[in-house]
This record gives sequence, structure tokens and C-alpha cells, in this order.
Amino acid sequence: MSLHQETAPGVPHVTQILADWAVNIKGADIPTEVRREGLRTFVNWTGCAVGGARHETVDRALAAVRPFSGKATSTVLGRPDRLDALHAALLNGISSHVLDYDDTHLKTIIHPAGPVASALLALAEMRPISGYDLLTALIVGMEAECRIGNCVYPHHYDRGWHITGTAGVFGAAAAVGKAIGLSSRQVRWAFGIAATQSSGLREMFGTMTKSFHPGRAAQNGMFAALLAEADYDSSERAIEAPRGFANVMSDKQDYAEIVDDLGTRWEAALNSYKPFACGIVIHPAIDGCIQLREELGDKVKAIRSVTLKTHPLVLELTGKRAPKSGLEGKFSVYHAAAAALLRGDGGPMAFTNEMVNEADIIALRDTITATADPACHEASVDIDITFEDGSTATKHVERAIGSRDVPLTDAQIDRKFVNQSVPVVGKAVTEGLLKTAWNLEQLADAAEVARASIPDNEEKAAAE
Amino acid sequence: MSLHQETAPGVPHVTQILADWAVNIKGADIPTEVRREGLRTFVNWTGCAVGGARHETVDRALAAVRPFSGKATSTVLGRPDRLDALHAALLNGISSHVLDYDDTHLKTIIHPAGPVASALLALAEMRPISGYDLLTALIVGMEAECRIGNCVYPHHYDRGWHITGTAGVFGAAAAVGKAIGLSSRQVRWAFGIAATQSSGLREMFGTMTKSFHPGRAAQNGMFAALLAEADYDSSERAIEAPRGFANVMSDKQDYAEIVDDLGTRWEAALNSYKPFACGIVIHPAIDGCIQLREELGDKVKAIRSVTLKTHPLVLELTGKRAPKSGLEGKFSVYHAAAAALLRGDGGPMAFTNEMVNEADIIALRDTITATADPACHEASVDIDITFEDGSTATKHVERAIGSRDVPLTDAQIDRKFVNQSVPVVGKAVTEGLLKTAWNLEQLADAAEVARASIPDNEEKAAAE
Repeated sequence: MSLHQETAPGVPHVTQILADWAVNIKGADIPTEVRREGLRTFVNWTGCAVGGARHETVDRALAAVRPFSGKATSTVLGRPDRLDALHAALLNGISSHVLDYDDTHLKTIIHPAGPVASALLALAEMRPISGYDLLTALIVGMEAECRIGNCVYPHHYDRGWHITGTAGVFGAAAAVGKAIGLSSRQVRWAFGIAATQSSGLREMFGTMTKSFHPGRAAQNGMFAALLAEADYDSSERAIEAPRGFANVMSDKQDYAEIVDDLGTRWEAALNSYKPFACGIVIHPAIDGCIQLREELGDKVKAIRSVTLKTHPLVLELTGKRAPKSGLEGKFSVYHAAAAALLRGDGGPMAFTNEMVNEADIIALRDTITATADPACHEASVDIDITFEDGSTATKHVERAIGSRDVPLTDAQIDRKFVNQSVPVVGKAVTEGLLKTAWNLEQLADAAEVARASIPDNEEKAAAE
Repeated sequence: MSLHQETAPGVPHVTQILADWAVNIKGADIPTEVRREGLRTFVNWTGCAVGGARHETVDRALAAVRPFSGKATSTVLGRPDRLDALHAALLNGISSHVLDYDDTHLKTIIHPAGPVASALLALAEMRPISGYDLLTALIVGMEAECRIGNCVYPHHYDRGWHITGTAGVFGAAAAVGKAIGLSSRQVRWAFGIAATQSSGLREMFGTMTKSFHPGRAAQNGMFAALLAEADYDSSERAIEAPRGFANVMSDKQDYAEIVDDLGTRWEAALNSYKPFACGIVIHPAIDGCIQLREELGDKVKAIRSVTLKTHPLVLELTGKRAPKSGLEGKFSVYHAAAAALLRGDGGPMAFTNEMVNEADIIALRDTITATADPACHEASVDIDITFEDGSTATKHVERAIGSRDVPLTDAQIDRKFVNQSVPVVGKAVTEGLLKTAWNLEQLADAAEVARASIPDNEEKAAAE
């Protein structure tokens, strides 16, 4: 084996093909319906970033970052704070994911917008770009990220990698590379510098470091593109090389997922938006429990036990029996089901530190058992309730709300946005921001969206 | 499997034990000879950072970084440029490694100083620390880094990870955590945030992105400690958890290497310093070829062919037949041997873009064959030369200069320092810097070392 081992026979030049595609595609080459889904992604991401902006996770990251920030060009969405563009990308990536309420590419469980949109909007405040071009770059970045994820999923995820971080850094690199007009060779270098920073362990789930992953992926991917712009060179085959990303970090490499049907099959258009503020795998249980609550009324207070029959991933990812914090609660199907039955809620308020410690929630949670059924679809669940008087109730959810088959409508995205944003920036800013975000493709300066999120009028005036 | 799977039976609480040790150890607990080796490490690292400071790799990284730098507290060693401490750590980590001339923990091929010293000295310019305490923190960081490396080496490296990056980030986190006085719980968090950033692919060898690894490890490990200081929480068992660093990134986990004999067995004291500006594995060949040149004189111009019998890692790591750049030349035992035979040199000048393209070097290089002998020690080589007249010469190197058995003397470290530093910052600055570096333990303010490296007097005056 020499330093530069030959790539195995039959392996396509994935890094180069993807870089060429990213450089050459034009906004008008992207079908209208794909651009529309990209816009829905952008609006949903903006709401999530504002919604998470006052979380203590963001406060603490900001405290650590502040002494090191460069020129304060870029907004921490939903706050009066501004940072240099790299640090703003980090912070917005954290806040958009901290409530586990963002978007999901269901095939890979990647949350595509966090790493990509956080990088692009922070950059837009420093190096102006139109809203139309930002949306093009966002779709290009998400497409790269999801295709690279498809290439290695599920083996890569099963090994313990948080794929939103590991694949997200490529998405941010591609998006920023597109936005700043890198050459194909520079995009290859950017992919190399991204690959060598690809990281994020699932061990961090349930801690503040989980939401660090999309933030750092945004920052690192942006930095990869900026280094490549300065002709900082790297491997030009970092995805497929014998010691590249796919071989080192996964037992599975399906390169056709990356290069086949580029420009006709759109992974970015498969994005979905969470109706509930936690891992997508427990959404069917929450959906079913909320429906049961609506049907049962006060009878939910007389439950003796609950049985959930779920997809195996539910227990693998969210099998925490006794969560102690709101963040841990997002990884407990037991807490989530109990909160849905007793409060009718799966939003951010169902996953606060207080809610996971309320006595009635804990009592009901402890009566719930869950079994994994490999035959169960990821978007399905069966719920069986036994009441104290021996009577029973059941609920079958065929496809949960927010799944590909039952996507959120634009109106539901609006409602989710408003519910998150109003408590953080108030009603007037929320209304203006929502309108500006939907209007992205008409904006001569995409940075208007960031400025529209600033809560305080004086700060906002100063920024404009 | 639940979110927080139990750690496997028998696995010690490695992260906690190492964090407790790092927090509790005092400078005086470190044996004199270990402190002395730490000082030699620091001096050698300082010379390497200054020696690499004008490399185009550093120029390009600096161009990319500059628009994002925060308050310019910290020196890019050997240059008039200053950056915020995080970015200075990145740049100094790059420059100290870019010539492949730094230090080596031979058991793991980790280059320990780059990630750790680069973080500490940049921090010292922002948050003052005595030279004595900086040396203590340096040794603590190197010890953590090398022990974590031992735990997973060689399987981790064989999988394709550049261990200086992947283990180095833990060293930087431990060192900065020690320097700023984190609690044990905060150091555990810092290890968690370090683990989730652990990255760096061997695919990058031969490009500018190789030296990015120690730089980014320094920056990321420092940031991990600073986030932990702000109570940004993380897993507290990131090294040994089922989905932690060792399990996700290696097939081998020998936790005893991390926790056994802490405070009595010192991996940091096993550090060695390269006499030649390239990967350690080709040092025996260069040593032997330089000896042969001294013995043969002009007869080296009449060589028909050369055969090298080497350790297998030599061909795996440095088997590049036709390097085109200086950086690639460092990964060609053929080029290195030819340059040693024809120029008598293994220093930075043997690995310039010009040198790898000189006609006589290329001609001799192409006559060299190398064979891997598993019985050959890593510090040994056998060289057989056949001349055009049919006569022969041989050289057996039992242990190469710079290996553990033939360490560089202090005087040789001085000579190496001067040879690197004078072309970058001149004779006067070099002499002052060398003296200041050796005097580290007596400095009330460790940052004096950084200031002593600034080449231009006016800039230097402004910084003081």
C-alpha cells in the first residue's frame, strides 16, 4: 500500500462528479417543486433557530464564543447578539437543533437544514447574496449532504456517528462553495477539508453537545470552503479514496447514491418537518397519544398501563426510562407518550426540565412498556391502553403526521413557526420575519431575513 | 439498546479517572526528568513553529482566517501577525507540523506537541500563566493524548485515522482545562466535546490538509475546554462509552493503557525529536544514506542501483514513487534516500518543490527499490548499493538517530532550532527566542516566548 493507494476498480470519481455538478448547476435547473420544498425547509429552519435562541445551551455557547468573535457581521437569529460569520453559523446551527424540532431527511435521519442554512445565512450578512441564489445554494448543499448520507447509511449511523454532523459538514462546504463561486477543483478541496473534519458521536445525545453537531458542521463546512477559496489544498477524492470518508467511517459505500441521477432525482425535496420537538422516531407514538387524549378526555387520568408496539429504532434511540432533564426527555418514548396523553402536547413545552419531573407524568411514564416489532413501519405505531377499571382502548397510527405521507401543510409550518417564535421575539417581529422568510426568492439581499429576526427595535435599527 | 447503554462489564471509568488525575496533579508531582523532557519538547516545538511560519500553507490559512479573527491577542509564531487565541492555536499547530520536522511519540506515531503546545501558548497570551504552570499543563496534555493513542493504536491508525489529530484534540482539551482550572466534571465535559470533534484522515497526507490536523486539534481542544468552562455539558464517559471515541473509531480498546500507572509511567517522557524533516519511518534510510555519502564522497554520482530493506510501515506510509511537490516528497522513501545520498541532507531543504524535481535526484530515485521485511525494526534499515562499475557498498543502521535509543542531545536540538529559525526571523531573534524557550520554567509570564518569536522589531515593540 502506498500513500496514494489506487481507488478500488469500479469506484466512480465521486468527489469530482459531485463538485462538478455543484459548480455547474444553475438556479433555473432546479425544478419548481424542488425549489418550493427548499423554501419550506428555509422557513421551517428560520422558525426553529429563533425558537431555540433563548435556550440555555445557546446562552452557554455564546458565553464561551464571545471573547473570540471577529468582526460582528452576522446575527444570532432571534437575539440582539451578533458575531463573525463563522461563529454565527455555529450558534444558529445549535439553536435550530436544540429543541429537536427541525427538519428530517427520513431515509437517513439527517436534519439537513441546520448545517447548511446556518452557514449560508451567516455568510450572507458578510458577503451579500440574493435570496434566489441563497436558495439555490441551500438546495445544492442539502442535496450533497443527503446523497453522501445515503451512501453510508445505515451502517455509518449504526457504528455510532451522528450523521447530521458527519454528512452535514459536506453540505455546508458545498453550499458555501456554490455561494462564493469556487471552481470545481476548489470544491473538491473543500470536500477534502470537510471530510477531514467530519465528526460527531451519538454518545452525545441527551446533552448540549448533540446540537453542537449541526452548528459545528455549519462552521467547519463554511471554513472548508473559505480555505479552499484561499487555495489551501487537500485530497481531491476525499469521499471515495481507500482512506477517505466512506471507507474509514462506514462499512457500507453505495456510491451510486451520490452520483446517479444528479439533477433528476432530488433528495433535498424529500425533506420533512417535525410536528413534535423530539426525535422523529417517536412521532407516531406522540401522534397516536394526542389522538387518544382527544378521544378519551379525562379518562386519561385513570390509565393503569400502556403498551406501545413500535419500530425497533424507537427503543434503540429513545429508550430512556427515567429522563431527568428536558433534553433527556426527548430520548424517552415513555416520557413523550405520557406527556402527550396527559397534556396533549409534543411541542417544546412537553420537553422542559420541569415537565419531565412532574409527578403525574412520571407516574404514567412508569406504566408504559414498549416492544420493538421489525415488521412495524417507522411512521407507524400500535397503542394499547388498559384503564384502572379493566376497560381498554387502542389506537393504530398508519402514518404519523409529519411523515412523507402526511407532510405538514404550509399553514401548519406557519403555525409551528409562530408558536416557537412569538415567545422569543414577540408577535410583531414574528409576523415580519415569517413574511420575509417566505419571500426569500424575491429578496435582493438574503441577509434581510437575519435582520428581520432581531428582537429589539433599537438593535435592529443599528444593524440596518 | 437504550440511549445510554451501559458501559460493558469490566470497562473502567476511563474518562473520569483521567479527568480526576489531570485536575489533581501538581507540577511538583511530575518527576524532574519528565519535566526536563517536556522542556525539550517545548523548545523543539517552538523551533518547528517558527521554522514553518513562512510556508505557503501558513500563508494561505492566514489569508482565509484573517477576516474572522477576534481580538488579536496571540502571536502567529515567527511572524508579525497576531490573531485571537483560537485562531493562533490553529496557525501555530499548522506551522509546527508543516515541515514534518516536529516530535514523535514512537509507540503511536503521534506528534504530541503540535495540538497541545499550540493551544497553551496562544491561550497564555490572553489569559496569563507562568512558564512553570504552562509546562505542567503541557505534560498533562501530552500524557492524556499519548495514553488515549496507546489505547487504540494501531487498529485506529490502520483504519485510516491520523492519530495526531484524533488523539491530539483530547491532549489540547486536557492541557487547557488544566491551565484554566476546570473542575473534574468540566474536564469530563471537555473530553466529551473533544471526542465529538475527533477527526483527521490519513488520505490528506501529502497535502496542506495534513498539517491542518494538529492545528485544528489544538483549536478544537481549546474550544472544548472553554465551552466546558461555560458549563456547556456533554457526555461524561466519551472515551469508553459504547458509542464513544474508542468503540466508534477503533477495533481495539486497551483501557489499561489510559488508566494504569498514572503518575508513575510517563508516556510524555518517551517523546523524540526528528533529525529529519519528514515522517519518522524513513529516518533510518536517510541516516544510513547520509553516512554512506560521507564514506563514499563523489562515488555517489556513479550509483547504478540501491536496495533498501525496511520495516513494512516505510512502504505503507512513504511508498510514493514519483513525488511532484515538496510535501509529496516527504512521503517518498525513494526521494528521501536519493536526496540524502546526493545532497547529504534530510532537513527542510531536502523537501522543497525544487528539490523533488531536480534531474539528478529523480534519476537516482528511479534506481531505488525498497522491500518490506517484517523482521526489520522500525528504527533499522539495510542499504545495498551497486555502482556502475559493478562494485558494491552496504550500510546497516541498527537504530537511527532521533530514535529512543539514539535521542537528539540538547546541543542537537539547539542546532536544529537555529537552522530552522534563522532563515525565518534572523539570528538575533533566534538567539533570544531559544534562550527564552529553554528558560520557560523561570518565566513569570509564559507569553514571553511567543513575543520573543516576533521577527520585526517595531511589531515586537508594539506587542510588548
